[in-house]
Amino acid sequence: MTFAAVDVIRTKRDGGVLSDAAIDWVVDAYTKGVVADEQMSALAMAILLRGMTPAEIARWTAAMIASGERLDLSAVDRPTADKHSTGGVGDKITLPLTPLVAACGVAVPQLSGRGLGHTGGTLDKLESIPGWRASLDNAEFIAQLRDVGAVICAAGDGLAPADRKLYALRDVTGTVEAIPLIASSIMSKKIAEGTGALVLDVKVGSGAFMKSLDDARELARTMVDLGTAHGVRTVALLTDMSTPLGLAVGNAVEVTESVEVLAGGGPSDVVELTLALAREMLDAAGRPDADPAAALADGRAMDAWRSMIRAQGGDPDAALPTARETHTVTAESDGFVSSVDAYAIGIAAWRLGAGRARKEDPVSAAAGVLLHRRPGDPVRAGEPLYELRADDPSRFEAALSAAAGAVSISAEAPAPVPLVIDRLA
Amino acid sequence: MTFAAVDVIRTKRDGGVLSDAAIDWVVDAYTKGVVADEQMSALAMAILLRGMTPAEIARWTAAMIASGERLDLSAVDRPTADKHSTGGVGDKITLPLTPLVAACGVAVPQLSGRGLGHTGGTLDKLESIPGWRASLDNAEFIAQLRDVGAVICAAGDGLAPADRKLYALRDVTGTVEAIPLIASSIMSKKIAEGTGALVLDVKVGSGAFMKSLDDARELARTMVDLGTAHGVRTVALLTDMSTPLGLAVGNAVEVTESVEVLAGGGPSDVVELTLALAREMLDAAGRPDADPAAALADGRAMDAWRSMIRAQGGDPDAALPTARETHTVTAESDGFVSSVDAYAIGIAAWRLGAGRARKEDPVSAAAGVLLHRRPGDPVRAGEPLYELRADDPSRFEAALSAAAGAVSISAEAPAPVPLVIDRLA
Repeated sequence: MTFAAVDVIRTKRDGGVLSDAAIDWVVDAYTKGVVADEQMSALAMAILLRGMTPAEIARWTAAMIASGERLDLSAVDRPTADKHSTGGVGDKITLPLTPLVAACGVAVPQLSGRGLGHTGGTLDKLESIPGWRASLDNAEFIAQLRDVGAVICAAGDGLAPADRKLYALRDVTGTVEAIPLIASSIMSKKIAEGTGALVLDVKVGSGAFMKSLDDARELARTMVDLGTAHGVRTVALLTDMSTPLGLAVGNAVEVTESVEVLAGGGPSDVVELTLALAREMLDAAGRPDADPAAALADGRAMDAWRSMIRAQGGDPDAALPTARETHTVTAESDGFVSSVDAYAIGIAAWRLGAGRARKEDPVSAAAGVLLHRRPGDPVRAGEPLYELRADDPSRFEAALSAAAGAVSISAEAPAPVPLVIDRLA
Repeated sequence: MTFAAVDVIRTKRDGGVLSDAAIDWVVDAYTKGVVADEQMSALAMAILLRGMTPAEIARWTAAMIASGERLDLSAVDRPTADKHSTGGVGDKITLPLTPLVAACGVAVPQLSGRGLGHTGGTLDKLESIPGWRASLDNAEFIAQLRDVGAVICAAGDGLAPADRKLYALRDVTGTVEAIPLIASSIMSKKIAEGTGALVLDVKVGSGAFMKSLDDARELARTMVDLGTAHGVRTVALLTDMSTPLGLAVGNAVEVTESVEVLAGGGPSDVVELTLALAREMLDAAGRPDADPAAALADGRAMDAWRSMIRAQGGDPDAALPTARETHTVTAESDGFVSSVDAYAIGIAAWRLGAGRARKEDPVSAAAGVLLHRRPGDPVRAGEPLYELRADDPSRFEAALSAAAGAVSISAEAPAPVPLVIDRLA
């Protein structure tokens, strides 16, 4: 069945519901270049402002999956589970989580992305490890998943090419922030990669894409329903992203902190969230009795990490890049740290070179922010609050300006904020 | 001042007001290709769904004018007045009106367009006259305006190039129907052409672009305010377009009907509207005492028509193309014609070949619909209601299907519908 693009756009523009046939046609025609970029961006804006019904979102997702290949992981002789985070500041959880879950007997096919804007990208972080490569072909991906049980790599070009094209378009046309398009983008790739189970970490707060709990809950609900409808056991945790996760925000610094967690140490919030997500993944993959805390404590998770890094050419023992210049910001008064604003710290790390503004920009492996205090910590005037790291000291001014006011100090210790806010299944 | 296109799009998407600097930048950057088509179409959709304030519309219009040249008509030693119709079925008024007003001492710089969809284009109609050419350069345009006092030609590439580019984009992206963009598109060209006065014929009804009186009134108000703000004396008439104007709908057939009006005959509604618009133009141009009815009656308007056609290479005495095939539709019962649906007749004429679906399509000079009865006329079963004309008889089926039910017959004569509904200044 064939349509006129203008008619499809007009239907959504005027608040109508797109038919299954219209969705199938427009996604396929866009992938093939029959529907032009300027037509799809107008449709995306209409979707953003008019919304989509659950049935429209489901069909749109199915059409995006159908635009490419769907991986067959049946050669892997274990259950599979993946995790997706909607992105946050200091969110390195994928790094310790993937080998940890693999160490517990569930294979983790983690297709990740690069960072854009104030949130870092998992691949950017791992690329600070000398020798490590992000690109695997499908055969390498499946072989490593079978042999090591853990893979973190870039998604291949064959998965959901409609999404790849649409995502790049949305990025430049102000149409990123549409829940139907966010949900279908994430879920089309995760479903096409062939995972049996999926745990979603939907972030909410200043450093997250979703600033409000209602929006985060709507996104989580939409994605859980999409995964379930496609036969993927899907669970979502809503987690706090008003504060950066852990102490390290950047690339190499986040790898170092992840290795600390795998060694049985690390900041308590990173450990807590890693274990919470691991339990959900193991449970969804049919291994509710696995004990990820034991796997962290007894070194099995670290062994899996080392195997995973080596399998992709990385040297887990190599020294990571360090920044040539540091600048420390100290407290102006005594008291307790009452808040550390994730967005401000994320922007500061970006300004230092840890992130990129355009997808073709390089990132600095060594740049970043290291927090010395977290909410609830006592501090005295003159003691360090956080440290900026960069190779180029001219970047400090913009980073300091971005981070100004990020850390608040109060006379009383603040009430603790729960990290996991809610769970949807 | 420079902006990021995404920020401008987001501001409008989220219901904000664009600053003057942002509007100036985005229109200029789009004209130069710095803002891409897919960004402008997303912005156009956001404008369509979120609207614009009068101040934003005024600035957008000014930016479109500033994208090109503004003609200087000071070499013309008479006042100038132009007319713009928002388009209707059988709307050939420009043809008799332009020479009529010129015959009354006011020069008419009429830059016209071609038809798209169910409404015909003035240039398409005139091109059915052997030898007549639509393209004049600026020097020819001004010379003819000075020497003949009447020009109907295509707008040059130098006028509002931003509008030319944006109009083509809106056509394929479902963003035509935005009052701020319609108003700024029309008015930027009319203001840039340099006319001193402008009368707008804003059509309302089934055959018009604006189906509701409220929308038509809003468009008229917006355009009158834009013209006035730019020093052009601007008046709008809201006129009925539920019924085709006159009896002829097509290209050559509309020229023939226009010449009948110039000869002192023609359908009463075409004469009425031509005179009403002529009086408004003459009044706005400072000649309230001119008598256009006399200029029709005494042949001065016909003389101006002949001079105008000859000045552009046309032969006013040449036979016009006639269709090889005709098909007549007759009444099934006795009574009075209660309505003739303009939209249905417009679509039928289009299907016969009088109009085009894409701007590169050719049109047939001879194709069209000739009404034999108008609302209020008595008719007996078996008498002709209308006649289809085409070179290719295979087109009759689609045209008959489009026109089915267009003419309603009732036992009683319908109440007359006023042609001029309202006037805004």
